[in-house]
Amino acid sequence: MKNILDRNQNKADEVRRLLRMKNVVMVNLISSPGAGKTTLLERTCEELGSTFRMGIIEGDITTDRDAQRLKKYNIPIVVINTEGGCHLDSHSIFKVLGSFDLDNLDVLFVENVGNLICPSQFDLGETFKLAMISTAEGDDKPVKYPMIFREAKAVLLNKTDLIPYTNFSHSGFMEDLKKINDRIPVFEVSCTKGDGLGKWFEWIRAQIPQSGIRT
Amino acid sequence: MKNILDRNQNKADEVRRLLRMKNVVMVNLISSPGAGKTTLLERTCEELGSTFRMGIIEGDITTDRDAQRLKKYNIPIVVINTEGGCHLDSHSIFKVLGSFDLDNLDVLFVENVGNLICPSQFDLGETFKLAMISTAEGDDKPVKYPMIFREAKAVLLNKTDLIPYTNFSHSGFMEDLKKINDRIPVFEVSCTKGDGLGKWFEWIRAQIPQSGIRT
Repeated sequence: MKNILDRNQNKADEVRRLLRMKNVVMVNLISSPGAGKTTLLERTCEELGSTFRMGIIEGDITTDRDAQRLKKYNIPIVVINTEGGCHLDSHSIFKVLGSFDLDNLDVLFVENVGNLICPSQFDLGETFKLAMISTAEGDDKPVKYPMIFREAKAVLLNKTDLIPYTNFSHSGFMEDLKKINDRIPVFEVSCTKGDGLGKWFEWIRAQIPQSGIRT
Repeated sequence: MKNILDRNQNKADEVRRLLRMKNVVMVNLISSPGAGKTTLLERTCEELGSTFRMGIIEGDITTDRDAQRLKKYNIPIVVINTEGGCHLDSHSIFKVLGSFDLDNLDVLFVENVGNLICPSQFDLGETFKLAMISTAEGDDKPVKYPMIFREAKAVLLNKTDLIPYTNFSHSGFMEDLKKINDRIPVFEVSCTKGDGLGKWFEWIRAQIPQSGIRT
């Protein structure tokens, strides 16, 4: 296992150097299955697509269903099917980078395989990780799956519209999260309803270098 | 990887032999984080606890929160913390079997680590696997995570009470599931509201040998 992680880290460092040189921000989006990663990307393409040159890598065990949902935005999308693998790794990312015109790209979103555990252990060479969680999963997820909440630069708490119909405790969630990562920004959103996305858009814009903005 | 799986399989076979000898049914419950495994076990303890001699193995990366929720039922519970590991394996199960009085047990529920991928690849020596999915995760999960739906003896579709507030397509879910496993029974339930549990209780009772019924 250490050997696998070491080899992954070396290639991740190579990816990171390449993306820095090309001034591309890479965002590694991690959540459980069905937390809303693809819907977040849909909303984000709609909002940022006219300002930034975006690309997407879709990680899935099988199928290109998520990529199909995103193709209407006319941005470059590459699918990586892991064929049973429970996370993306830096080698598969490095391989597909050649399919993008990195000189004409500002931000590359990676939708990792739906899994709250393994993806947090594999550096892809990303600029930063994002953790996403759905309120329907319950408020105890940070304390039960702490790794990704330690690693991420921000948390998206999605499906806030479902809170009235669940036993999700907002204060319980925030208290547990603060114990693990006390300064992490949390964006409370409903990607299907569009609630709360303004602050997310503002934050993600600020993560992408000005130099790359479309004129 | 093949080596790890082979070693796991050998120990799983040993677990299975032991449990058969002791006439104990072991159920390996698998789902994404927050699909409702612990709540299902709460309802099942309430319903079957007076008829069958039950035990529970709680698999979690860290914490004993789920076990704390279940201790009110006064049945033997053992926690396995995987400390980052994304699934239980047959070696950890074999080790904790010694903590149970197998001669006085009818059914042992194993709540696996919340993960729809890796646990489906590791035989624990269980009598059968159960797949659980929450409607809030979306109707596309069988086609995107087919392994567990192929492996499981039954599917629990939980949080049916949330369907009116989501874009979950019942017909889409069923069509996809049938393509993967066309005869698998599906129990549509809301473990928090108590809806639809009667058929689940009836089915699970039928899986446990009569000889073990409390008199």
